[in-house]
Amino acid sequence: MNHPAPPTDLRTRRPFPAELLAELKAAFPERLSTAEAVRTHHGRDESPFDPLLPDAVLFAQQTDDVRTAVKLCARYDVPIIPYGNGSSLEGHLLAVEGGLSVDLSGMNRVLAIDAEDLTATVQAGVSRKTLNEALRDTGLFFPIDPGADASLGGMSATRASGTNAVRYGTMRENVLGLTVVLADGRVIKTGSRARKSAAGYDLTRLFVGSEGTLGVITEVTVRLYPQPEAVSAAVCSFASMGDAVRAVIETIQLGVPVARVEFVDALAIRAINRHSNLTLPESPTLFFEFHGTEASVKEQAETVQQIVADHAGSGFAWATRPEERSRLWNARHNAYFAMLQLKPGCRALTTDVCVPISRLAQCVVETEADLRNSPLPCPIVGHVGDGNFHVAMLIDPAKPEELAEAERLNSRVVERALRLGGTCTGEHGVGLHKMGFLVDEHGSDAVDVMRALKHALDPGNIMNPGKIFSYSRAAS
Amino acid sequence: MNHPAPPTDLRTRRPFPAELLAELKAAFPERLSTAEAVRTHHGRDESPFDPLLPDAVLFAQQTDDVRTAVKLCARYDVPIIPYGNGSSLEGHLLAVEGGLSVDLSGMNRVLAIDAEDLTATVQAGVSRKTLNEALRDTGLFFPIDPGADASLGGMSATRASGTNAVRYGTMRENVLGLTVVLADGRVIKTGSRARKSAAGYDLTRLFVGSEGTLGVITEVTVRLYPQPEAVSAAVCSFASMGDAVRAVIETIQLGVPVARVEFVDALAIRAINRHSNLTLPESPTLFFEFHGTEASVKEQAETVQQIVADHAGSGFAWATRPEERSRLWNARHNAYFAMLQLKPGCRALTTDVCVPISRLAQCVVETEADLRNSPLPCPIVGHVGDGNFHVAMLIDPAKPEELAEAERLNSRVVERALRLGGTCTGEHGVGLHKMGFLVDEHGSDAVDVMRALKHALDPGNIMNPGKIFSYSRAAS
Repeated sequence: MNHPAPPTDLRTRRPFPAELLAELKAAFPERLSTAEAVRTHHGRDESPFDPLLPDAVLFAQQTDDVRTAVKLCARYDVPIIPYGNGSSLEGHLLAVEGGLSVDLSGMNRVLAIDAEDLTATVQAGVSRKTLNEALRDTGLFFPIDPGADASLGGMSATRASGTNAVRYGTMRENVLGLTVVLADGRVIKTGSRARKSAAGYDLTRLFVGSEGTLGVITEVTVRLYPQPEAVSAAVCSFASMGDAVRAVIETIQLGVPVARVEFVDALAIRAINRHSNLTLPESPTLFFEFHGTEASVKEQAETVQQIVADHAGSGFAWATRPEERSRLWNARHNAYFAMLQLKPGCRALTTDVCVPISRLAQCVVETEADLRNSPLPCPIVGHVGDGNFHVAMLIDPAKPEELAEAERLNSRVVERALRLGGTCTGEHGVGLHKMGFLVDEHGSDAVDVMRALKHALDPGNIMNPGKIFSYSRAAS
Repeated sequence: MNHPAPPTDLRTRRPFPAELLAELKAAFPERLSTAEAVRTHHGRDESPFDPLLPDAVLFAQQTDDVRTAVKLCARYDVPIIPYGNGSSLEGHLLAVEGGLSVDLSGMNRVLAIDAEDLTATVQAGVSRKTLNEALRDTGLFFPIDPGADASLGGMSATRASGTNAVRYGTMRENVLGLTVVLADGRVIKTGSRARKSAAGYDLTRLFVGSEGTLGVITEVTVRLYPQPEAVSAAVCSFASMGDAVRAVIETIQLGVPVARVEFVDALAIRAINRHSNLTLPESPTLFFEFHGTEASVKEQAETVQQIVADHAGSGFAWATRPEERSRLWNARHNAYFAMLQLKPGCRALTTDVCVPISRLAQCVVETEADLRNSPLPCPIVGHVGDGNFHVAMLIDPAKPEELAEAERLNSRVVERALRLGGTCTGEHGVGLHKMGFLVDEHGSDAVDVMRALKHALDPGNIMNPGKIFSYSRAAS
């Protein structure tokens, strides 16, 4: 199952008729661009793949703009690619068949904060940090935190999560409802603000994780949480990855309601030490965060400290005051950029497997042995409470053999995760890059079911075509 | 939006060819029945609707039996109605177009308990109590508890929840993966045992809540939880429903991780007193349960006690020892049967609305005023931490005017809940009975999207036809 890198040629590009461009310009005189710099910016994401440019970019300001654009594009059989903050990692935004990029970053209004119900409704371009800024005086927060300051529309579309998912869940659990523009221009609202419902098919969950292939998400209603009365943090080091991961497994199995537990390997710690001029022990390290009442976070930290000691962890330091917590966690927060500096000028190709937690130690230890034989620097970080970890394979974008080596390593990691009952992607999504693995994971019949759903909602294949799975209009 | 009662005539019944019966008998010589008593048992559920009998009943023992039956029925255009434990409440099991009832209760094997991963995989006929029996020595439990001892397949199909959902979520959050037999006989596995995944469309969540209309669920993988170190319970009374509900709202908004909080109104308490020969104060009552460490459950109970006092609650009694907890909670556990005895020979038509918690007090208080003017006894119980409550409207099944009155009251409750941003069904599902309300809730475009998904997976409409929404094969 060594799948090739995604297509980067233009053979499948569809025509973008001048009449469509004229109609779009007439409808959006101030907000349509065909400038190459704008198109280049919208034809790539944070993946290492070369950009594939859309033909034009629309800066949408409201759901009705999206509806108008979709109706026009549908008439001319032209693709629509929703664009949030450009932070996806698997080539989701590349215009493999050309088309119109619909930039939703201007749809950045927080429409409602219902503090009593612990919900907020936002336009899809609102980023997670913008939402949390808006919540500052409410005593509430929105916990989902992918590394980037992604938009809530994009986070919904990729079923994102991050460091808090072990306690608060992912976008799957935290989106209550959506406004979606369908491929024929109809606008639907899914879900409600009720905490649960058994009223018909779960359209919300169908669009969460659909990566723009079924419709354009323009508004999102999410769950909020009371800011915990107390927060404490802890950091500790281990002799081996296996020891660190086994401490996490025991923590989860005991039901300690840990809010975050992050793993950083020795190479990533070395990167952080260089980047931030620190002297942390260069060994596998766990970062914990506990949320609750004063008494409860103390109790959680003490329980975890005992577990860590049982697994020969050392240097368990814990802190409750904000500035001390920041000091402990800064290393983790800076890990991504620190890792990139291990190899100047590099880009990272990042694995994203997630396995049942009983298999996590085996998966990480086997992966580590594999990486040891590779010429690429490959630091590892992970949201290990979920069984999810990332290998950042640092490649020189000018050297195709390094991309090939990274793809080889990635294939082996995915193959291992699937063999252990896991998934090829815990939180980044499929995009262009994992289309082959999706079939390995679910089987061709299940992927055919996905194709049938796509056909039901977007028979003309104008919604972000060429992503998640191959789809032929003729064959369906 | 006063929607009529569901169809109970046989005009839409499809032919059940003798050739099909012969083929089914040949394939399942020991496990096919056409006895009227068996068909009657399988043509109804716990709703007050008259039975509509299937033509035959298959007692399946494995996924492959279901596959064989579906393939045969598909060839002859005959409906398939999955049957778990018969405890659905909205007419889900009535054979409105005739067909084959596939009884999965014999598929009652627990296939795997992965204690380290906090997951279990079971055949669809395993009931929640059977699963918890199997878990007894593992220190783990499965929390979802609809009133009946429902099957996990049926609970998945209706997106069930129960008293623990406020802490542990519903079937939506707790099903990790499914084995499903599709309408053409293909068998797919959805999801994985990983705690999260972003790998393609969320087929698991599509089938959870699909009420047998998209396929037959034959195996279910669910999340398990460590049994809490300590459990405590509390009960207290209030002068008014509004006070009780406002105490709940404050508890949720403060983020107290209460495991259960159940509301029982004065009439239901009166029923319980009669039924169990008790002398509880006949006023609106809350039952709480707290899960955690010893220190944490104590802290939770103290916080809630203060909130209760702020809302003029009285008689706050709390207990940690199992027998004391049972004594406090017995009243709640017996509520349903106690309520039925308020009116000998009655059946209950039960509302199931769920609203954003800020609207719960308004919704309950307005509903109470409405019920006061009705001739029917209408006790109220509720999973109020979720914003979900049930009015049990007790009707004499021999009196159509009482069913009409109950339908009138139900329509008013649903209309109120939708106006307040809620849903017509929190946990019972749509079945036959809420098809009209589904359109009121989601709008016809969203219901058309559901229809398009149905068409994609079951174009011949053999999977539990006539449920959730109207569907015409010709029109799609």
